[in-house]
Amino acid sequence: MRSTGRKGNMDIQYIHGYDHSENIRLQDQASTLVDLLHSDTSYPAGSHVLEVGCGVGAQTITLAGNSPGAHITSIDISEISVAAAKEKIKEAGFTNVNFQQGDIFQLRFAPESFDHIFVCFVLEHLSQPVEAFCCLNRLIKVGGTITVIEGDHGSTYFYPDSEAAYKAIQCQVVLQRRAGCNANIGRELYPILNQVGFCSIHVSPRMVYVDSSKPSLVEGFTKNTFTAMIKGVRESSIEAGLIDAKTFDDGINGLYRTTETDGVFCYTFFKAVANKK
Amino acid sequence: MRSTGRKGNMDIQYIHGYDHSENIRLQDQASTLVDLLHSDTSYPAGSHVLEVGCGVGAQTITLAGNSPGAHITSIDISEISVAAAKEKIKEAGFTNVNFQQGDIFQLRFAPESFDHIFVCFVLEHLSQPVEAFCCLNRLIKVGGTITVIEGDHGSTYFYPDSEAAYKAIQCQVVLQRRAGCNANIGRELYPILNQVGFCSIHVSPRMVYVDSSKPSLVEGFTKNTFTAMIKGVRESSIEAGLIDAKTFDDGINGLYRTTETDGVFCYTFFKAVANKK
Repeated sequence: MRSTGRKGNMDIQYIHGYDHSENIRLQDQASTLVDLLHSDTSYPAGSHVLEVGCGVGAQTITLAGNSPGAHITSIDISEISVAAAKEKIKEAGFTNVNFQQGDIFQLRFAPESFDHIFVCFVLEHLSQPVEAFCCLNRLIKVGGTITVIEGDHGSTYFYPDSEAAYKAIQCQVVLQRRAGCNANIGRELYPILNQVGFCSIHVSPRMVYVDSSKPSLVEGFTKNTFTAMIKGVRESSIEAGLIDAKTFDDGINGLYRTTETDGVFCYTFFKAVANKK
Repeated sequence: MRSTGRKGNMDIQYIHGYDHSENIRLQDQASTLVDLLHSDTSYPAGSHVLEVGCGVGAQTITLAGNSPGAHITSIDISEISVAAAKEKIKEAGFTNVNFQQGDIFQLRFAPESFDHIFVCFVLEHLSQPVEAFCCLNRLIKVGGTITVIEGDHGSTYFYPDSEAAYKAIQCQVVLQRRAGCNANIGRELYPILNQVGFCSIHVSPRMVYVDSSKPSLVEGFTKNTFTAMIKGVRESSIEAGLIDAKTFDDGINGLYRTTETDGVFCYTFFKAVANKK
């Protein structure tokens, strides 16, 4: 699930802060971001939950911790990621997660195998999100739920303004699009779930607002998550002829400029919960 | 306070829904928008509160209702607006509000006359917001608070995407700017209050997320508040050479397109509360 278009994506590790012992001071605020996205997801004891696209287990840790009595199955298309996630969960001492390698379009579970499905930062990497969710829909018991969390790069704005920064961000969006992916997928959760046939769809935006009164978010989110992600597409954007080096670097400087005392940075994640009909 | 640059601004009446008996079905949801912006503002009995830029009293009603024991003084630069606000409050049966005509830069109150100041949808119309807040700062008792609520047109995004819609919105932003105003002021609340010298500044974004599961917001906010506001600058935008008629009309159609079953519309207000040092 996470094998395409991942270059220059957000390293959400920073949001979680689990493996950044060098950066302890970020962790309090980092926990707040985990709360922002995950605190309202907890599955009942005994329920069967499928996590789709677990990657190296960044979200799995939170999922397992918030639903200690649930039986969680976490899958990813990458064997290597699955192995890393397995190790991470073992180290954390959780025993309620089983891992499997699997392709979202060819999962070998029987229909209605799960009470709930959880999908976080996966949809943006899929060229056929509706088709993928149709596959997942079959695996959920009637009345069960699907939970989806995605970012939306087009939700980004800041102060002071910087045309170059918007252009640099747009490079990431275009590169994602050329890889068949969608960096602005967050706002589309409702129409996608509606089209697949889910009911009782509830979407809630989770906005990350950062000003200089929140130094942990300035460092942990604006600089080390978002700007780091955009910096990650510098070479490929220039090579692809999307932007010239000076404009891109001006854009990165523009993003850093928003982390000064009078700067503000805004980004919104979207979370959807819907029921299987 | 509200005498400049008001053409094509949001008619926040729709959000309040107090004078829309023809549109009762909107009111439940409309109340939610009032809650979104106002529910956490309530002043103690006996406290002296100054509402700056009350206009025709749209916010005054909520303020008076949420703080029944407070002594509220509401001012506006327009005598006509003040008269309308007075009538509205009288009809609503509130007795805790006094009205005065006054210019924010030349208010005749003694220093430290008020425990709290409330400013809603005013800052965007001022060409010198920092100077205005310096004037207000002097009127607050030490340890008192200022509360500011503003929109931010640059926070607008939607699905499906429409380049023409962004261009039409940008016309409103440019016209505001030419009138010395700032339609994207919401994101700047922290830096402005910080520059003026307020302390303990807390800014919280209040995002309005609209999809077709929220028909009241589709009608009351996306169509009748936001799109109506943008439509209001059609002639002046074309006359000013900012856009051609076809692109503008395509933009309006693009905004209406977001109100269909698969559409999504996002807008963010910002609310700041800060203390006088």
